[in-house]
Amino acid sequence: MALALSLGRRGMGQCWPNPAVGCVIVKDGRIVGRGWTQPGGRPHAETEALAQAGALARGATAYVTLEPCAHHGKTPPCADALISAGIARVVAPIEDSDTRVSGQGFARLREAGVTVKTGVLADQAARDHAGFLQRCEVGRPFVTLKLASSFDGRIATATGQSQWITGPEARRFVHGMRMRHDAVMVGAGTARADDPSLTVRDMGVSRQPVRVVVSRRLELPLIGTLARTAKDVPVWLCHGADVDAKRRETWQGLGARMFSCGLSGAQLDPADVLFHLGQAGLTRVFCEGGSALAASLLAADLVDELVGFSAGLVIGAEGLPAIGAMGLANLSEAARFDLVEVRDLGGDVVHRWRRRLA
Amino acid sequence: MALALSLGRRGMGQCWPNPAVGCVIVKDGRIVGRGWTQPGGRPHAETEALAQAGALARGATAYVTLEPCAHHGKTPPCADALISAGIARVVAPIEDSDTRVSGQGFARLREAGVTVKTGVLADQAARDHAGFLQRCEVGRPFVTLKLASSFDGRIATATGQSQWITGPEARRFVHGMRMRHDAVMVGAGTARADDPSLTVRDMGVSRQPVRVVVSRRLELPLIGTLARTAKDVPVWLCHGADVDAKRRETWQGLGARMFSCGLSGAQLDPADVLFHLGQAGLTRVFCEGGSALAASLLAADLVDELVGFSAGLVIGAEGLPAIGAMGLANLSEAARFDLVEVRDLGGDVVHRWRRRLA
Repeated sequence: MALALSLGRRGMGQCWPNPAVGCVIVKDGRIVGRGWTQPGGRPHAETEALAQAGALARGATAYVTLEPCAHHGKTPPCADALISAGIARVVAPIEDSDTRVSGQGFARLREAGVTVKTGVLADQAARDHAGFLQRCEVGRPFVTLKLASSFDGRIATATGQSQWITGPEARRFVHGMRMRHDAVMVGAGTARADDPSLTVRDMGVSRQPVRVVVSRRLELPLIGTLARTAKDVPVWLCHGADVDAKRRETWQGLGARMFSCGLSGAQLDPADVLFHLGQAGLTRVFCEGGSALAASLLAADLVDELVGFSAGLVIGAEGLPAIGAMGLANLSEAARFDLVEVRDLGGDVVHRWRRRLA
Repeated sequence: MALALSLGRRGMGQCWPNPAVGCVIVKDGRIVGRGWTQPGGRPHAETEALAQAGALARGATAYVTLEPCAHHGKTPPCADALISAGIARVVAPIEDSDTRVSGQGFARLREAGVTVKTGVLADQAARDHAGFLQRCEVGRPFVTLKLASSFDGRIATATGQSQWITGPEARRFVHGMRMRHDAVMVGAGTARADDPSLTVRDMGVSRQPVRVVVSRRLELPLIGTLARTAKDVPVWLCHGADVDAKRRETWQGLGARMFSCGLSGAQLDPADVLFHLGQAGLTRVFCEGGSALAASLLAADLVDELVGFSAGLVIGAEGLPAIGAMGLANLSEAARFDLVEVRDLGGDVVHRWRRRLA
């Protein structure tokens, strides 16, 4: 199952809106098939693994990281495929919470006489599929917030200098994280200040993440990198309903997909932004700032994973903070996170935290 | 030598103004004596180890972490003690830069026919003795700056709440660090806001660190913990020459030792503060903030080691920053540090950095 989970993770960021599933087929103690959800979401992991196994699938055990699907979507149901290949036993950690599947995949297998065992490595599977499950259950994608800052939590000097705070290994690590998410999201300030491309480079990916920019008024440069490349790699813009119509049409003309989102005070409501992104199929969103968007996501308790990169330099309090104002009155109200991992990454510190469940 | 160095570190913070030396005596492949500088600085490590070895010292090798002293201070010279005990060979990583010793200890040993080998683990020895050597060479103690903050580098909310940002293991670790320094230093704001005791608790120390408060105008509470305990554990106050005379006399009456320091702009000059502390015998100073003192030390490039504790909570930009304004114009001017160690400490991240030499 650990192998199946690690195979499944290969599909992360590549197969939305489908879950990134892994499958291993074992016959008489030998692995006879391995598969994971392919870029774009098809073929499914089970299909891949069954094709490898061929006739050896008869009587074998299939380890699948999520309940096999039972409905006819763009592909026939995997539960049926496992049955007709003669699989004797299916081991799967958790149920799929997609209402078209939930429990029905297991039920169909059992009806056909296949032994079903659940619960193995269920915590890890739930974490790996958190984006997909969360989108099914509450409608919003999993959100990873990444912030690279100086020792004292600054992302730029007072005059806006921000290049190369962290080193090359940390930057490469960030490209790997982008690759495992369906979309990369930034606020308008970052899009203006950095003119970022937000693509994954030097990783050989088959599917670039969607670039999402959150900008109430669409005050974004029309001659920047995003505008120039919107036809090649998707650019999705989340804006307010009161946006200037001409600006919206211009961006549409450049190839961007537009989302009209609700407000919370003077800013876009981050929950509504994520709801729209979930409806459009995203399961995992990687937010790279800036400080205002980071603060609004954190204040609304919408950050599932927090990833910090800390560099060994000190900028001082005039510098731009990584996280903006949050309107926190008491320390007890502060969002709390549990440490998952911390290590030295080419001289910078990388630390990953997971939202503490109340 | 590694053992001698680790023995020597036991004396850190306990034996100033003397260096924390370790000594191991080896005869025919067996350890026959071990010693380290005792609390208060005497007896010296060599004396301790020779006493253990007794007659077995004859013909043995002594591993000493710093050049043995050659001058008559409050104790007779260790070089003579090693010679008269019949030590055949002395292995020591580095010279003592105290002008009363520098090279003369080794010279005296060689004259007496003792083989002297230097350079073994010299880098580690130079780091362990950095405070003592720096005080001899440039007159100021080694400075460790420790900052415990939220994920986003804040030490308190806008309303000043700051208790328990980091967990119990991190706090215990801080007591261990205080113990290995000669003094704990804070700014006036921290002394007012936190009413700290700044002592080492639950570590069984024989000698508490000196408590140093940097306060130009001595605007410090006369009924707080420091005032109440100044007669039991030393309180040293660094103030401006223009301080109110009555305040200074009051603190002297409470038992504090006063240091009149020069100004740099409107604030006490951190270099002059450290110079006075070095003159008074301190070799290792542990600064625990607040943000103004931290910024002034960093801006003057006077921080040798930076230790951060990061907790998994987010306070937002209204919170009090760990490091105050530094007047940095360009990112290239920022003080840079090299990562020494990073790890999970009871759910908080501890990261240690060493000043990058230009």
